[in-house]
Amino acid sequence: MAPGKPAETSENARPARRRLSVDRRRGELVAAALKLFGGRDAEDVSIDDVASAAGASRALVYHYFGGKQELYLAALRGAAVELESRLCRDEGGRPLDELAAALRRYFDFVEEDTAGFAALLRGGPARRAGEAGEIVDGVRRRLFLLIQRQLRVDEPSPVLRLTLRTWIASVEAAGLDWLEHRDLDRAALERMLVDQMVALCRAAAAYDEDVERLLAELV
Amino acid sequence: MAPGKPAETSENARPARRRLSVDRRRGELVAAALKLFGGRDAEDVSIDDVASAAGASRALVYHYFGGKQELYLAALRGAAVELESRLCRDEGGRPLDELAAALRRYFDFVEEDTAGFAALLRGGPARRAGEAGEIVDGVRRRLFLLIQRQLRVDEPSPVLRLTLRTWIASVEAAGLDWLEHRDLDRAALERMLVDQMVALCRAAAAYDEDVERLLAELV
Repeated sequence: MAPGKPAETSENARPARRRLSVDRRRGELVAAALKLFGGRDAEDVSIDDVASAAGASRALVYHYFGGKQELYLAALRGAAVELESRLCRDEGGRPLDELAAALRRYFDFVEEDTAGFAALLRGGPARRAGEAGEIVDGVRRRLFLLIQRQLRVDEPSPVLRLTLRTWIASVEAAGLDWLEHRDLDRAALERMLVDQMVALCRAAAAYDEDVERLLAELV
Repeated sequence: MAPGKPAETSENARPARRRLSVDRRRGELVAAALKLFGGRDAEDVSIDDVASAAGASRALVYHYFGGKQELYLAALRGAAVELESRLCRDEGGRPLDELAAALRRYFDFVEEDTAGFAALLRGGPARRAGEAGEIVDGVRRRLFLLIQRQLRVDEPSPVLRLTLRTWIASVEAAGLDWLEHRDLDRAALERMLVDQMVALCRAAAAYDEDVERLLAELV
């Protein structure tokens, strides 16, 4: 566009364009916030930090989010939505193949959205209070249900529930370890985690008939 | 002692007695704080909450701790010391027997010091910044070294490191699950977790010679 010459716009195009730029600006702020919240505890991140990381003014951050807590929740929610949208695809394969595919997408998230992964895990395995806790617990609960569905399990027995839950904790720990050291081949690590699931079921099968039946179906 | 009649005290006994009561009072405040910090996020606990839970004045809490962050760190440190003092005993048995004994003491802590366990896990598996992070990471690091020693491992390979780390994450998740549901027999759960360690090593042995060697020594 030539300088000084206003572009021709229809009455309808203008709000849509403004909406787009509002969304983009908001998204940039959330991305900058997520990066900071993924690296430090929420109490150690200030609105000024976020504004300066996003090249925005403090006033703009307040304009879009009202305050730090709202910004923090928006960042967490963004990470949760991103992770779940990657995982929710159902490819209809055999249970262990589906598990392997889901793990690949999980590690795509770990690798490509490191800050989001760290921000979610910073919530910790203990139940958290408040909205942040609901977001983080919600992700874990839905991941549990996803795995349950992939393994075609309806109502897990206590031992099976524990087995799935400890495996999820293993996968989370493996994601953090891999980010920290990067000395393992990602594809091999993913295969090993699927093997671990089978191994955990084998160990638990001695304690529970439900797990025994599942194991027979898996291998 | 008859009322109104002062006890005979030597010059030396008095400070010792006062010290004792200062320590006890401080300990009561830390215990009350731990209970609150174990149940909620640190930002949702106020000095007033702690004072009222301990039947103390707000001024007394400030007198002993200066502020909430110091009190929070004292509570976390107390939980860390308690857990580690339970675990550090070395009974000199075979590796898997030692691991089983350590697990029993770990679950004693989970059962008897629930608030301390929850406060430590609220730190989350992601590295935390600041002093709280140092305390929580320190516990995890020393637990890792303890298990390494119990299994007679000097320098773990990446796959072995990952295997031990995922097992520790499994144990943490199992502790939380057990507290939440209480529908598994604790002794059986502890045995199952030892079996899981062997199972995880079996799965990892296909990827790494160090794990293969360890497995041969374990079983």
